[in-house]
Amino acid sequence: MTGPSVAFQDLYPDDVAHCYGCGRLNSAGLQVRSFWEVEGETAIARLTPDPKYTAVPGYVYGGLIASLIDCHGTGTAAGAMARRDAMARRDAETSGEQDGDVPMPRFVTASLHVDYRAPTPMGVELVARATVTEITDRKVATDITVEAGEVTVATGRVVAVRMPEHLLG
Amino acid sequence: MTGPSVAFQDLYPDDVAHCYGCGRLNSAGLQVRSFWEVEGETAIARLTPDPKYTAVPGYVYGGLIASLIDCHGTGTAAGAMARRDAMARRDAETSGEQDGDVPMPRFVTASLHVDYRAPTPMGVELVARATVTEITDRKVATDITVEAGEVTVATGRVVAVRMPEHLLG
Repeated sequence: MTGPSVAFQDLYPDDVAHCYGCGRLNSAGLQVRSFWEVEGETAIARLTPDPKYTAVPGYVYGGLIASLIDCHGTGTAAGAMARRDAMARRDAETSGEQDGDVPMPRFVTASLHVDYRAPTPMGVELVARATVTEITDRKVATDITVEAGEVTVATGRVVAVRMPEHLLG
Repeated sequence: MTGPSVAFQDLYPDDVAHCYGCGRLNSAGLQVRSFWEVEGETAIARLTPDPKYTAVPGYVYGGLIASLIDCHGTGTAAGAMARRDAMARRDAETSGEQDGDVPMPRFVTASLHVDYRAPTPMGVELVARATVTEITDRKVATDITVEAGEVTVATGRVVAVRMPEHLLG
């Protein structure tokens, strides 16, 4: 599959790009990357788990699925908020109130819920889709499905909030 | 801290002891180990995360916390069910109905919920406590808290069900 070359996570500032789940600067991590599938509505991430992330032989560890959902949720939150901020900036520029770049905001997880629907076979690309269900000035909620081939192996929900200033390096 | 030397997860059969979160045979994994703190009620697990499990520099990745909660929940489920099975066996032996060993049962996660309460500092031992809130023939639910020093950094809930036969190797 081909897709856009720049993920939401690729735009995180360097000093907050070390996340085990999605940091491009964490070479030991999962490096989850999220892209719009339908601009402003649904984002997609693809991950083929390393065999070390085993639950029982032949199947993927549920904690890996939770991590994929977590980082795809916070990544989609960042993408959705960046889009919202950019639209607000355009409105402000039109009225002469504001200019300058709006950086990609960084989110943390307030809550994570995962329902495991079916055992996840190892060796299959997982496709996570996040739908933005709520967005306010500081919070973005997403509903997420994870598919392995034709099978929905998990569904989940992430509530993400803007990262507190003191964590931003 | 000292404690009992045999964790619930130490008694998993070899062919289902490869879990990334808690398998003693997964040398790349977290090797979460759970013990009764109050027999039949509350179980404890301790984990000092490797620095690679970073969220942002200085703080622990939420997916690692989710994995700790997940495997401490399924481990406690196994311990609680083994205890229940052993009590049932003693009753049956008294009435002459049954004998023989009852193996440690193995559970999978049906659902996982985590509320992140505070940023988790890196370099601190995390203490997870699971309280058994429901137990039936096939399901065990646990409420779990995770503390870093004096701070409750996360609370969660795991619903675990007996592993389907076809996954048992």
